[in-house]
Amino acid sequence: MNIEIISIGDELLIGQTINTNAGWMGEQLLNAGMRVQWVSTVGDEYDHLVDALKLAESRADFVLMTGGLGPTHDDITKKVISDYFKAKLILDRRVLKMVQERFKKRGIVMVKANEEQAMVPDIAEIIINKLGTAPGLIFRKGNKNFYVMPGVPFEMQAMMTEKIIPDMLDRYRGAFSVRKTLATTGIPESTLFETMGDMAKIERFARVAFLPDLAGVKIRLTAAGQDHDHARRNLEEAEKLVRSTIEKFIFADDDIKLEEAIARMLAGNRKTLAIAESCTGGLISHQFTNIPGSSLIFMGSVVCYSNAAKMTLLGVPREMLVQFGSVSEQVAGAMAEGARKRFGADYAISTTGIAGPSGGTPDKPVGLVYVGYADEQETVASRHVFFQDRLGNKARFSQAAMNLLRTKLLSREE
Amino acid sequence: MNIEIISIGDELLIGQTINTNAGWMGEQLLNAGMRVQWVSTVGDEYDHLVDALKLAESRADFVLMTGGLGPTHDDITKKVISDYFKAKLILDRRVLKMVQERFKKRGIVMVKANEEQAMVPDIAEIIINKLGTAPGLIFRKGNKNFYVMPGVPFEMQAMMTEKIIPDMLDRYRGAFSVRKTLATTGIPESTLFETMGDMAKIERFARVAFLPDLAGVKIRLTAAGQDHDHARRNLEEAEKLVRSTIEKFIFADDDIKLEEAIARMLAGNRKTLAIAESCTGGLISHQFTNIPGSSLIFMGSVVCYSNAAKMTLLGVPREMLVQFGSVSEQVAGAMAEGARKRFGADYAISTTGIAGPSGGTPDKPVGLVYVGYADEQETVASRHVFFQDRLGNKARFSQAAMNLLRTKLLSREE
Repeated sequence: MNIEIISIGDELLIGQTINTNAGWMGEQLLNAGMRVQWVSTVGDEYDHLVDALKLAESRADFVLMTGGLGPTHDDITKKVISDYFKAKLILDRRVLKMVQERFKKRGIVMVKANEEQAMVPDIAEIIINKLGTAPGLIFRKGNKNFYVMPGVPFEMQAMMTEKIIPDMLDRYRGAFSVRKTLATTGIPESTLFETMGDMAKIERFARVAFLPDLAGVKIRLTAAGQDHDHARRNLEEAEKLVRSTIEKFIFADDDIKLEEAIARMLAGNRKTLAIAESCTGGLISHQFTNIPGSSLIFMGSVVCYSNAAKMTLLGVPREMLVQFGSVSEQVAGAMAEGARKRFGADYAISTTGIAGPSGGTPDKPVGLVYVGYADEQETVASRHVFFQDRLGNKARFSQAAMNLLRTKLLSREE
Repeated sequence: MNIEIISIGDELLIGQTINTNAGWMGEQLLNAGMRVQWVSTVGDEYDHLVDALKLAESRADFVLMTGGLGPTHDDITKKVISDYFKAKLILDRRVLKMVQERFKKRGIVMVKANEEQAMVPDIAEIIINKLGTAPGLIFRKGNKNFYVMPGVPFEMQAMMTEKIIPDMLDRYRGAFSVRKTLATTGIPESTLFETMGDMAKIERFARVAFLPDLAGVKIRLTAAGQDHDHARRNLEEAEKLVRSTIEKFIFADDDIKLEEAIARMLAGNRKTLAIAESCTGGLISHQFTNIPGSSLIFMGSVVCYSNAAKMTLLGVPREMLVQFGSVSEQVAGAMAEGARKRFGADYAISTTGIAGPSGGTPDKPVGLVYVGYADEQETVASRHVFFQDRLGNKARFSQAAMNLLRTKLLSREE
């Protein structure tokens, strides 16, 4: 059975909003064993939306639409889909009451545009929107199902989780698929590919895809089967084959981030971390504190964008800054040491470098970073040069610092 | 004239990679006066890709394809498009030489998979890839133009900027469009819409779209014209009408972020900022340090995830923490004061709250935050409650702290 997502909104076409909704839906559906085949993105234009609906109806069994349900004039999805299914708009008193109560609760005066959100197509099933004002809609045509949702991510997500995915699972017939991601680091994509040997042998059990990003290369295995168990068995066979050749490069066996892998290692050993960030400017701390429960392992950090802050808050000696410069192996080490002591942590990492776009010199170019590490016994730092833009460099610097920590944690475990 | 983007890759359909490429391309093309009409996302499947090509050829004048040009077996785009245009693959010695030199420079052994990247369709124009190994391709069919690029963002971006957008501009005939975004804050979308009055009057000059997000509601105006000047005049008329009703809610007149607006205000007055972050965990610092040149206005921050760090690094009194708790108006104020002093900054802001998912109590629920502000003359803090998930709360908390600073900076200017 086929699934299509139709993402609606001019903002998606002109890049003002990145289409994260389609990705989220694809991921959730795959987790439920169902694969999306197409994502069609169209603007808020009547004819384009009708064409997209016709195409989707011709090839998909489930059509998931998001966007264009808001209270303003540029939102035309409800009008288009009602016309498409020859439905009349009627007032839904239950929806109206919910919208009115929501405004009352927030103490905001309700305007007429909001009342119109309670007008719904007479032949649609209504999905109550607990987090906003626009209700979701379901249309059925033969065996085909059309789900219409707001584009606001958390409103759409609640509808998907509570109503739409269960509704789809009731109706879904076909091969189930499961996937697993093996996260690798320290080996280029093409070398990884060749090291894995006979791809046809692995693909008898699962499709293999290579996904390079700033943190390394992820290997995604997707296996199909008549039911979950069958798919799962195929996946296990494929994983065994992959691991037989490249085990040592695999850094996590699910689609997690490096900071999550590290947080698990630290939590498992009841150890804590502090960070001193210069050029990464808070990114590493932000990444660790995105993890729920990270307060158990993360003590805090100092973001020191000036030499004064490096001295005052981290105790980096003035002479060291003068002699070696703030972007140096010595200062990276001293920053890590300082952070470890100030926060009373077991481990600390640090970054000092030049993220760009300006500030580089022939000796110390944009993209240069020293990452530091300190524990009770030793303080070390390593040098890397990357070639990204400012944000890309910040991301690469963060990864380099985290990878130094990961390597050290692994060596301590041995 | 019509433009279509075809984004290729299973990872986009299952949400493992978010399709940022399509958004970036749409934005760059609009900046050059050209509007994307459709984005079609398909997996690495031969038939789906052929169908997408057929559909795009039937409706678009320019077709921009990304993804599936890599060195591994799951990359099938070059094969599909060569078959589609009945082209033969031949060795391009110039490309081969560049690939070889790239590997030599990096000191990595070149494997056979990389050599195949130098095989190109005989009828295609080649776009040299300065940042990677897979060349870009251009096919012409009548007046229709097909551009094939790698999916790696920075490789695609270089090809778009240096070759493809200029090539398209040479061939583009049709209405030019320009846009402007007015960023508002402090007013809900529906109220904003009603306050603006007769929409038809504004839309005689420009299309109006409302884009709500965590930072407020953006109003996007898109005007068309026979040439850039004509479109620009229409845009100005529309902006005048919009400003006549909602001027006081407009917070920036281009599509910039709150931190960028603040950084401009600070830089204009040669003032500096320090930050004390508890629940936002480094996010505010990360946001400010994403701005090139932010070292001129940003002194640094302390991320204090423990009470100990709040005392040691920011000088928050122990008694205050005991009496009011770490999530309190008093502590928010003391954190801002401490950060201002430690970093020697003109202004400081702070956050202390509960990002969730756990850690809430009936008195202090998940989503509660106190944001603090300190300057030479005063220290203040304000209380907010939001209802997002952990990452959403971090973003909302950051915005609240920044908005407190913005309001204070504005009042000082008056």
